[in-house]
Amino acid sequence: MTSVELLDLLESNTAMLRNYILDALPKDHSVPEIDLLYKMMRDYPSRPSKCLRPSLSMLACETLGGKIEDMMVTAAALEIFQNWVLIHDDIEDQSEFRRGSPVLQKLHGLPLAINAGDALHAKMWGLLTKNCDVLGDKLAHLIMKEFVKMVDETTEGQHVELGWIEKNRWDLSEDDYFLMVQKKTSWYTCVAPCRLGHLVASRKPISKNDFVRFGIDLGIGFQIRDDILNLTADRRYGKEIAGDIVEGKRTLVLINLLEVAGARDKEIVKAIMKKRKAKSQKDVQKVLEFMKKYGSIDYAKNRAEEFSQSALKQFEQIFGHAPNTKAKIRLRSLVEYMIVRDW
Amino acid sequence: MTSVELLDLLESNTAMLRNYILDALPKDHSVPEIDLLYKMMRDYPSRPSKCLRPSLSMLACETLGGKIEDMMVTAAALEIFQNWVLIHDDIEDQSEFRRGSPVLQKLHGLPLAINAGDALHAKMWGLLTKNCDVLGDKLAHLIMKEFVKMVDETTEGQHVELGWIEKNRWDLSEDDYFLMVQKKTSWYTCVAPCRLGHLVASRKPISKNDFVRFGIDLGIGFQIRDDILNLTADRRYGKEIAGDIVEGKRTLVLINLLEVAGARDKEIVKAIMKKRKAKSQKDVQKVLEFMKKYGSIDYAKNRAEEFSQSALKQFEQIFGHAPNTKAKIRLRSLVEYMIVRDW
Repeated sequence: MTSVELLDLLESNTAMLRNYILDALPKDHSVPEIDLLYKMMRDYPSRPSKCLRPSLSMLACETLGGKIEDMMVTAAALEIFQNWVLIHDDIEDQSEFRRGSPVLQKLHGLPLAINAGDALHAKMWGLLTKNCDVLGDKLAHLIMKEFVKMVDETTEGQHVELGWIEKNRWDLSEDDYFLMVQKKTSWYTCVAPCRLGHLVASRKPISKNDFVRFGIDLGIGFQIRDDILNLTADRRYGKEIAGDIVEGKRTLVLINLLEVAGARDKEIVKAIMKKRKAKSQKDVQKVLEFMKKYGSIDYAKNRAEEFSQSALKQFEQIFGHAPNTKAKIRLRSLVEYMIVRDW
Repeated sequence: MTSVELLDLLESNTAMLRNYILDALPKDHSVPEIDLLYKMMRDYPSRPSKCLRPSLSMLACETLGGKIEDMMVTAAALEIFQNWVLIHDDIEDQSEFRRGSPVLQKLHGLPLAINAGDALHAKMWGLLTKNCDVLGDKLAHLIMKEFVKMVDETTEGQHVELGWIEKNRWDLSEDDYFLMVQKKTSWYTCVAPCRLGHLVASRKPISKNDFVRFGIDLGIGFQIRDDILNLTADRRYGKEIAGDIVEGKRTLVLINLLEVAGARDKEIVKAIMKKRKAKSQKDVQKVLEFMKKYGSIDYAKNRAEEFSQSALKQFEQIFGHAPNTKAKIRLRSLVEYMIVRDW
């Protein structure tokens, strides 16, 4: 399956999911203020998104013998999770753009944006209660417990990253980075979607460790590539270019640069990064140049490749026994797409 | 029952609930950053609180023949709700103090505080899944739906109020105020606690309208009094004095003032309020003086009294048939306490 074919498939999945989500969210209200809240809740879910996480969960479910219609509520809730988290992330990171448009707090102010994120968060749980009717109470509650664990992991990872920024810390190791990423990214991007697909397919409790190692490695490979894309991709990426440097994100590229750069260059990089949001465009370019000069981008590419290969190996171990259905072929393509995207 | 006896009773309830909640929240973590997140999640729940809402739910449950131990998870979740909402409220309102100490974002910065609120929010749902074991899946599911409705109402009410502040709107009527308060305050403070107590006591679905009118009136009476306390109470209140004027809250007192003040004075008040957070202490005092001069505080007291009397009348209709247990006597005292607190 080529990546063009995969993207076409994702696009049709995405359209279906987007309609489902927008149907599940409140539409309009006679009180203009409340009507605006509904518009804000619908804003991010209406913007273009690849819906990677729900697609992963649906394909994992199908590959393991489950029915796609049993997965709809849960997949939609995964996408709503992504959306409320992004609303709050964009505030926490002081981002400017999201999916090609200004972030919600730029459009409506910070207080309303925090509150809209909370309202969307609650809708996620509201949607999950619908699983009681679709899948029965027992399975619905197991799914909720997976969501509780997922939010726990994500908020912990987010806290670790934000704490480094808050304290202006730059004395970080690769292990610090991997811990942060496995919590902040891997869990909700890979571990939880696969576990949820497995849970719905098997309709009974699953083991604590199922998909955890695979999902963590896949997520780390995915995140490192995302970090690199942020540094190198063009406007189609939908965020500011090198926005991670502006926002002071501790990426593997930057951590490596601070490890390998000569003493004088290292101090220059640190001095720039410590300026926080007061960095100039020239400052950002300077850091980017050092990243190239010291081979830190290539280093991160190689590390990403290691995690990706490990994930692919585990994919074969986990799904190897599953029949070679269309769903399995698509699932493998999606996993490959997540970790071998063009730089 | 005197209000001193009631407060003693609430205090013992509160101590039990606080222990229960702190037991349910994560304690410590070997990674110092994550340990800090846990400390932040435990901060507001550790501060002194009267636990009015869980107390109301427990007493309503007992009065209607339910067991207090069946209500513990739900009551604790109500208090956790209050705590995560306060974390985000304090950011949205740019408050300075909460329960006598600096607000969470003053202690740890805004990004970490938003995230800690989200983590606590998810813990509320995590706790609610425990009801599956205590009360069975069906009842647990109904309780979750009440929580979904409660968060919906609260975020809508919060949005209405924040929207007025964001747009610097002062052309508001009493009806605008009542709509905002019934959503922002009444639902989670009165309607939901009573409905949840009823639900757990009866162990079967309850009617859509149960406790709604009673809870709304009780909540409006409670909120107007809270607004007045904010203007008149001393340091024991735990927030800044007249903090609502500083924060630009549209209280009934202020709405009345803008209705009845002479044209010149009205313009002075509006000009001060439009300064948003840039108001001086003298500005705040000026508004306070006008509120006294034009009788707006007394007006609000009278309106509060009307809602309170209506709530008390409905209390007798709703609970009149219930046996005269200790719980019922305490419940009536609590309801009276909520609406007849000393100015």
